[in-house]
Amino acid sequence: MHPAWLPHEALRPLGSRSVRVDGDGPLVQTVLDEVGAARDAFGGADGPAELVLTIAGDDGDLGAEGYAIGRADGVTTVRAATDRGLLYGFFHVVRLGDAAFGDDFDTSVHKPAYARRMLDHWDNVDRHEVMGQVERGYSGDSIFWRDGVPLRDGDRVRAYARLLAATGVNAVALNNVNVHAAEARLLTDRLGEIAWLATIFRAYGIRVHLSASFAAPVTVGGLDTADPLDPSVAAWWAQTTANVYATIPDFGGYVVKADSEGQPGPFGYGRTHADGANVLADALAPFGGVVHWRAFVYNHRQDWRDRSTDRARAAYDHFAPLDGQFRDNVILQVKYGPIDFQTREPISPVIAAMARTAVAVELQVTQEYTGQQRHVCYLGPQWSEILSFPLAEPATVADLSDGGIVAVSNVGDDEYWTGHPLAQANLYAFGRLAWDPALTPEAILDEWIGLTFPTAPPRLRDTLHAMMDDSWRTYELYTAPLGIGFMVRPHYHYGPDVDGYEYTPWGTYHFADRDGVGVDRTRATGTGYTGQYPAPWSDVYESLATCPDELLLFFHHVPYGHVLHSGKTVIQHIYDTHFDGVERVHSLRPLWDQVAGLVPDDLHARVASRLDEQLRSAIEWRDQINTYFYRKSGVPDAHGRQIFA
Amino acid sequence: MHPAWLPHEALRPLGSRSVRVDGDGPLVQTVLDEVGAARDAFGGADGPAELVLTIAGDDGDLGAEGYAIGRADGVTTVRAATDRGLLYGFFHVVRLGDAAFGDDFDTSVHKPAYARRMLDHWDNVDRHEVMGQVERGYSGDSIFWRDGVPLRDGDRVRAYARLLAATGVNAVALNNVNVHAAEARLLTDRLGEIAWLATIFRAYGIRVHLSASFAAPVTVGGLDTADPLDPSVAAWWAQTTANVYATIPDFGGYVVKADSEGQPGPFGYGRTHADGANVLADALAPFGGVVHWRAFVYNHRQDWRDRSTDRARAAYDHFAPLDGQFRDNVILQVKYGPIDFQTREPISPVIAAMARTAVAVELQVTQEYTGQQRHVCYLGPQWSEILSFPLAEPATVADLSDGGIVAVSNVGDDEYWTGHPLAQANLYAFGRLAWDPALTPEAILDEWIGLTFPTAPPRLRDTLHAMMDDSWRTYELYTAPLGIGFMVRPHYHYGPDVDGYEYTPWGTYHFADRDGVGVDRTRATGTGYTGQYPAPWSDVYESLATCPDELLLFFHHVPYGHVLHSGKTVIQHIYDTHFDGVERVHSLRPLWDQVAGLVPDDLHARVASRLDEQLRSAIEWRDQINTYFYRKSGVPDAHGRQIFA
Repeated sequence: MHPAWLPHEALRPLGSRSVRVDGDGPLVQTVLDEVGAARDAFGGADGPAELVLTIAGDDGDLGAEGYAIGRADGVTTVRAATDRGLLYGFFHVVRLGDAAFGDDFDTSVHKPAYARRMLDHWDNVDRHEVMGQVERGYSGDSIFWRDGVPLRDGDRVRAYARLLAATGVNAVALNNVNVHAAEARLLTDRLGEIAWLATIFRAYGIRVHLSASFAAPVTVGGLDTADPLDPSVAAWWAQTTANVYATIPDFGGYVVKADSEGQPGPFGYGRTHADGANVLADALAPFGGVVHWRAFVYNHRQDWRDRSTDRARAAYDHFAPLDGQFRDNVILQVKYGPIDFQTREPISPVIAAMARTAVAVELQVTQEYTGQQRHVCYLGPQWSEILSFPLAEPATVADLSDGGIVAVSNVGDDEYWTGHPLAQANLYAFGRLAWDPALTPEAILDEWIGLTFPTAPPRLRDTLHAMMDDSWRTYELYTAPLGIGFMVRPHYHYGPDVDGYEYTPWGTYHFADRDGVGVDRTRATGTGYTGQYPAPWSDVYESLATCPDELLLFFHHVPYGHVLHSGKTVIQHIYDTHFDGVERVHSLRPLWDQVAGLVPDDLHARVASRLDEQLRSAIEWRDQINTYFYRKSGVPDAHGRQIFA
Repeated sequence: MHPAWLPHEALRPLGSRSVRVDGDGPLVQTVLDEVGAARDAFGGADGPAELVLTIAGDDGDLGAEGYAIGRADGVTTVRAATDRGLLYGFFHVVRLGDAAFGDDFDTSVHKPAYARRMLDHWDNVDRHEVMGQVERGYSGDSIFWRDGVPLRDGDRVRAYARLLAATGVNAVALNNVNVHAAEARLLTDRLGEIAWLATIFRAYGIRVHLSASFAAPVTVGGLDTADPLDPSVAAWWAQTTANVYATIPDFGGYVVKADSEGQPGPFGYGRTHADGANVLADALAPFGGVVHWRAFVYNHRQDWRDRSTDRARAAYDHFAPLDGQFRDNVILQVKYGPIDFQTREPISPVIAAMARTAVAVELQVTQEYTGQQRHVCYLGPQWSEILSFPLAEPATVADLSDGGIVAVSNVGDDEYWTGHPLAQANLYAFGRLAWDPALTPEAILDEWIGLTFPTAPPRLRDTLHAMMDDSWRTYELYTAPLGIGFMVRPHYHYGPDVDGYEYTPWGTYHFADRDGVGVDRTRATGTGYTGQYPAPWSDVYESLATCPDELLLFFHHVPYGHVLHSGKTVIQHIYDTHFDGVERVHSLRPLWDQVAGLVPDDLHARVASRLDEQLRSAIEWRDQINTYFYRKSGVPDAHGRQIFA
């Protein structure tokens, strides 16, 4: 297993010094074990403690997970009110490295922005015949199950929990939101598998959650209905949940994908999603559990001929009227955009529409639409943009996401955890941003580079930064243009297929014809989706004069000759960005070749082969997109570059 | 199991009469068993024989499989020179029904046009993770294997062999031409499974063949090469083949898909396909076996940007130079068109290019591209057109196909054998045309209707005829226009996806842009494919003035405003045919409803549900094709019908 951002060497500053740990609580033992292992590795030191990690009474400033850290008179002190805070403080010291033991520094307080910072695994228990062991997994198979059997690989799960704790993640949903037959039984007769995992995660301050099937009362419980208003159904959930807590007292709760892409839900019984979520919430409430109820509800059997249906509208149309009807322990889990984790989407208006409902924004660490861990695509900048977006000015998405932040994991049993070694940075960045959304993605990137390659010379650090920092925008350049999204190969979601979804039931269309392209979502002439936004966005997006270029085709259908704010026509913008994107990718491999020898050979080779695939794929994207729009528009490239006819 | 064209009732005329069978030979017992079963069912009759089936010395006119049949003085006589001929004569009597015992008729001689009339099964032994138990199978699973295990369902295999014998088929390749690991071992340690099947087929005059992997010497034999010129390889094939014949003395031979879509072949060793085929042929020759060597060799990793590569050219370019280099017992198996079993393709020029090589034309009974047994698509007319096409005037394809006729089976473990009950007619028609290519598809259809629904009133017969007779041309109307082909959903090959293959490596493009559509395969300005044809076709296809409308876009790239011989523009032709095709499909379900009660309810319901799906699919085809070309061309329908924007 690759050590990711906790390599042996990262523990040297701490392990070569004298450290004292004071306090009680289960996670204190975790900190003691960490300190002991570091000392064993690097010899420690005698004499008075150079680092003191201590649980002291809370002055009211630290909370359940916070800590204060400072250095005075040559002693670095971490103070926490709880053992969980102490663990996070410990990892802060690790992040500081030698700087933790250099010049004195003032004491600062660090607390997470959200009580719940959660990763969702889309791991299956049985290997699904279409989706495999991990749905949308690009890092090998699951670290929890294989072919229906729990792996019980304690070393790997422990290493994973430790890595997550070092980023600040404190909740993990263990199984896929698409709950199939075997997975449904994790709630009941297979609960022991979850309990075994919970014990490992618990030592790192991480609570486990389960994705549950809304139909479980029928499929697992043997009832003849899953109607949320049926007393027998409520009783089944209550009893089942009580059993879960009897085994796992700190169980986190349920994640539910209901009435979505074929999953069962309350619509089947003529009930609302508030009815559906509340029956689970009531079962969880006595134990302090929560239900993450996904807002990803739309008609996936749409007719492409029907221009009146707009998938982008669906979540708002379903959920906004229900605001105020959800229990307090329901968290509405909302994908950041109205469609599905595209490289570029507007922010989901649902996030601003639920003033009386806890909302958690959902991000996607696994690179389903962003290169599937074959392309370098550092997503920190995307997430930072999302979280800082002032959707309900002055409130940002980070402010509005009062129920925490959730993301889909990119981890598998790959030796680098994430397939592409550099995709580890996305997992790291998610945890750090979930702790503090105000961190800059550049700083997180450099932090990750420093930890992962602790002995790296500046040349390597600079190269990694240069390759990764802007890689999300590079990916955007050579894929679907101007916010239109999709154009990926159906089902696989990798590589270009401009019309791949154009005539399907999935509701993801671009409507390109010989004259123009884009989806008219205005109130004036389109689907009215812009009206779901609060001011000023409802007007900003409505008007061609103010709609940002990067989202133009998401909101408007325009002629190819339409002039962007950039001064370019749409068609020339398409050509230019696609040539530019490939040029940028073309520069990566030479950069990487120059740092051969500065990273382990196997890691270098893995990245190199993926860079080659990224270049091949980027060229394919460029040529398909350019040819597609050249064939449609007939407009030649202003610069005479090669566009295949 | 549905009785198909051998229902109980079809045996009544024969079974209620006095029958005498004379002669020796293994298949005489089969005839005796048939006669005995019919007599048991229908009581037979005492007294002098009304039907005499006899093996008499050959006057030289009957051959190994022929027979003479006539009726004089109230006695019907079938005379054959062999037991196989006797069996075919017996089934002739069944086909005649009551007419065999009515007025006297002159004696006529019937002999098959080809010595080998073969069905290829694309059945897998293991269930392939992508292709399933039967590749391109639309009739359930295999009747031979399931999940790696032989089914050994003797009743079903015997019923199948009997049905095939009644059509005249006398050879069956049992496994998929894509030979995977388990299937490769059918040649060696799993040969017993083939021997078991061979025993059943043998009783109906059918020899079994096996698809073999060119790499078998390596993958099964443990050699380090499969180089056809390596003596150890030749020795392995010789020994392996001798072992096969020691177990199955009448084994037919091998079918080989080499250097095709990822299958191994002689190119891997720098050898020609003649080298490859001959090493197998030499192994088979001492035992009278043949190798069917498929000409389906092309670059399936083509670059869509490369206009110089033309998949249509590939088979001719590979094989024509090798004419004269193949052993006599090599049969080059050539798909009827240069691409891949499309609804409409020109005839493969390879069929005329191999004067010194035995050639077998390959048809596809399984409806991979023709509606997958969800659409009614009677293929008799297509095959009749193909076989009667004067490719090397005056020689027709039937004349040139001197190595026999082969087709891919459409049979599975479905209760109706073929998924769509009416698709049984395709299996029947193939056998009958392989026996006599001069039969008209209309006559075969009526023959099939009469046998399958022996008690049907004229109204049912007329309805079936009306629904099926022109159904292939109807299917053509609402799918890819003017011979361009494909436009199907990738991999599945069902339903429309106009650009689905347009930017893929598969070499199946239409090159539609805002101005026009089609592939320029002329010598003058295109890929030069027309030059592979003999006169007059090389000029007929080259010229816009003479190229038939139905193949226009296969050979030419033309503007949407190009006027066809029909007088319509290309774009208006597209609209008109697609509206017309749907109208035709729309008429089917009412026709079928009117015959409810005249066929078994379950069969009626099965057909009805498939007609509904056919209509849905035809509408989807119409709308996608029309919208696609409207978006590209901007030309409205001249008749103002609804084309979605």
